[in-house]
Amino acid sequence: MEKICDTDDIISIDPEDLFAHGFSDYSSINVDRLAVAVAYPRNTDHVSIIARICHKWRVPIVPFSGGSSLEGHVAAPFGGVSTDFCHMDQMVELHENDMDVVVQPGLCWADLNAQLAKSGTGLFFPIDPAPNAKIGGMIGTNCSGTNAVRYGTMRDWVMNVTIVLADGSIIKTRRRPRKCSAGYNLNGIIVGSEGTLEIVTEATLNLAPIPEYESVTVIPFSDLSTAVNAAAAIIRKGVPVAALELMDEVQMKVINQGGTTRPRVWAETPTLFFKFSGTKGIVNDNIRTVQEIVANFNPGKIEWAKDSHEKDVLWSARKESLYSMLALRKEGEELWTTVVAVPLSRLAEVISESKNDAERLGLYASVKGHVGDSNFHENIIYNKTDPEQLRSVETVVKGMVKRAIGVEGTCTGEHGIGYGKKASLELEVGTETLLAMVRSSIIMFDFCLLTS
Amino acid sequence: MEKICDTDDIISIDPEDLFAHGFSDYSSINVDRLAVAVAYPRNTDHVSIIARICHKWRVPIVPFSGGSSLEGHVAAPFGGVSTDFCHMDQMVELHENDMDVVVQPGLCWADLNAQLAKSGTGLFFPIDPAPNAKIGGMIGTNCSGTNAVRYGTMRDWVMNVTIVLADGSIIKTRRRPRKCSAGYNLNGIIVGSEGTLEIVTEATLNLAPIPEYESVTVIPFSDLSTAVNAAAAIIRKGVPVAALELMDEVQMKVINQGGTTRPRVWAETPTLFFKFSGTKGIVNDNIRTVQEIVANFNPGKIEWAKDSHEKDVLWSARKESLYSMLALRKEGEELWTTVVAVPLSRLAEVISESKNDAERLGLYASVKGHVGDSNFHENIIYNKTDPEQLRSVETVVKGMVKRAIGVEGTCTGEHGIGYGKKASLELEVGTETLLAMVRSSIIMFDFCLLTS
Repeated sequence: MEKICDTDDIISIDPEDLFAHGFSDYSSINVDRLAVAVAYPRNTDHVSIIARICHKWRVPIVPFSGGSSLEGHVAAPFGGVSTDFCHMDQMVELHENDMDVVVQPGLCWADLNAQLAKSGTGLFFPIDPAPNAKIGGMIGTNCSGTNAVRYGTMRDWVMNVTIVLADGSIIKTRRRPRKCSAGYNLNGIIVGSEGTLEIVTEATLNLAPIPEYESVTVIPFSDLSTAVNAAAAIIRKGVPVAALELMDEVQMKVINQGGTTRPRVWAETPTLFFKFSGTKGIVNDNIRTVQEIVANFNPGKIEWAKDSHEKDVLWSARKESLYSMLALRKEGEELWTTVVAVPLSRLAEVISESKNDAERLGLYASVKGHVGDSNFHENIIYNKTDPEQLRSVETVVKGMVKRAIGVEGTCTGEHGIGYGKKASLELEVGTETLLAMVRSSIIMFDFCLLTS
Repeated sequence: MEKICDTDDIISIDPEDLFAHGFSDYSSINVDRLAVAVAYPRNTDHVSIIARICHKWRVPIVPFSGGSSLEGHVAAPFGGVSTDFCHMDQMVELHENDMDVVVQPGLCWADLNAQLAKSGTGLFFPIDPAPNAKIGGMIGTNCSGTNAVRYGTMRDWVMNVTIVLADGSIIKTRRRPRKCSAGYNLNGIIVGSEGTLEIVTEATLNLAPIPEYESVTVIPFSDLSTAVNAAAAIIRKGVPVAALELMDEVQMKVINQGGTTRPRVWAETPTLFFKFSGTKGIVNDNIRTVQEIVANFNPGKIEWAKDSHEKDVLWSARKESLYSMLALRKEGEELWTTVVAVPLSRLAEVISESKNDAERLGLYASVKGHVGDSNFHENIIYNKTDPEQLRSVETVVKGMVKRAIGVEGTCTGEHGIGYGKKASLELEVGTETLLAMVRSSIIMFDFCLLTS
């Protein structure tokens, strides 16, 4: 094999490095084994060579970008080579007039947006998962975030990908048309495949114009069902909200306790957070429509941002929600974050029953939801070393998944399957469909052996 | 094999039936061979049995729904069984509060919308290809239409599909969550696979709220580049138009000649047609923004619909465009309709060069574009029995495809590949990527042998 560069720059077997790439504090699951090496490719050819070597010796490859996934995606239960894209973190080409950008998988979406802001093009990339998530992993899990109700999920913004297949061959799925019906939409199956079909080494992403005006509205309700029903009525009416988030009474209390949004004190009842964007005229029209709709749901005191500062203050509660919850952990405690999505008409009942489960088992849990997408998170504090608490949190998560699937929903709205939800996937799609998926990874891309 | 029903109801070998299923007046390509039989399944089990028999005897299956495709999708160059879904044309379940609907593949989208209008739910299905297109074929080609600039393409509206694989096995890809990151997104590769991976026997589609208000604006420009640049500026600004269509000076003249929109007479210059929708406030805001933007492009006389009747009158020119062109054909002449899509910044040049090509070769051709998606059609009148004209039209189409691919676009924006554009697909994606696609159809779904 040709010498590509000094191997010391590319391969690390430092134990700390192995640990940092195979264990995650945030993840719902970790395994007892680590990769045998971490590879640091600098370009697509490096990745191809890594794949050829690993393919020859049947060694698993685990792609690694932001490491912020929650279901054990970076774990290496069969050892192998973790492949870290930290040196492939560039915005390669910005096509302002085509409204697209070519990027490497190690680029963080927040850094991409910072660079786009500096470019003066007035464009941005609208998918907003965890702040440290990077493009490679975002493609892997078909991630989304608060903007999904307006802008969709990762798969809606990937125009093409350059990928390395298991045997090291390199293909590019597509060119840069804004619309396409040519051949199989390989992007469609690659986005969300969690590194089990291919390794993405470059991607072209669509960009959106930054809205000229934004505003935020916060509306508390007396109880959870009423809040969810109000949200559903707004979606049902087709109001083009930019974000529509729910936080339950526990989460609102946690934010008050955390104090990060002081001096503001929030009503500790289920609350909807709205973001609106467009021209000032459109935003005001949206706000008027929402005001009319929620009037039927007996809302508490509605807070409307009157300027850009107030907008930031109101939205800060949503932004701080995870950190406020993390701050509540006592010594030895962890936070289990999980997510499901369901048909809109069943959202209120699935949230309520999941909350009841946690309460019945004595766990401290809060609910946050991207209710515009009928998608919610439960965040549960527990002590892993206490077998009863561990059993309880697993009961709650399994119950939530089973309930979501029971009403024709999914076990994972935006976090992917990883190792944490492998059993749930089979429960959700059934053995036959799972086999069709497995077949595609084993045979279509010759990849399954390498990564699971 | 079990007896499923009277075979006479299911299988036809009537020569007229075979011809009606294998030859299309609209298609750019037809082949000299027909299927040996037409099957008329009544349910998924019938389709599964048809597949098992065809799989056993290695007989191709060609799924048939609306028959409105333009690239020879219904042709049977290797014989086989055309499978017509005309008896599977029902809306199966409407979930009003979840905003989704379960349908069969033989249902026409216009009929679906008529049934939805009757339901009083205020919901509609926003993908609008040819009026006689049916759900099965729409999934096959990842079709779109004038609404795509606002609502996206078919793949954005398919929540799950029930499919029959080559060996007759039946799987359902997913349940009904509004958002999902569970396992491979099989929908993503099935939509647009043109019946080469599976046969769709049922689909759950997302629905959208019918906008409470709509308006139409028509703006003529002095020349094509200016019209396209004005359209690009509007997209670049993020104005949420509901449709943004271009018709060139030839097409505008054809509509005047056709007389279907009399007494109105249109300026015979490149013209943009806009549709706006939302609340009345949002629509008026959109119109104001567009007016401001186009002022920089020296537009002709802007026509704004003042009421619902005027809206219909203005939009009728766009609606009548294909029929007006078809009416111009003389005895023995045909219309070749083709479509490409390109990056936004290259649209004006690719349209102009394609028009010049047709003019140089003495062909009568008009251009219509979904310019919001940087996607345009060229409609060319020619006489198939005149070898020189046939050569010329092929030169124009090949030139257009080559030009689109040369600027990083696609050979087909919304009509699919069929038989007409097989060579163009390889030119577009390259041999390696094409092989990855072929591999997936041969091995993943064991289907390629049966249909190509």
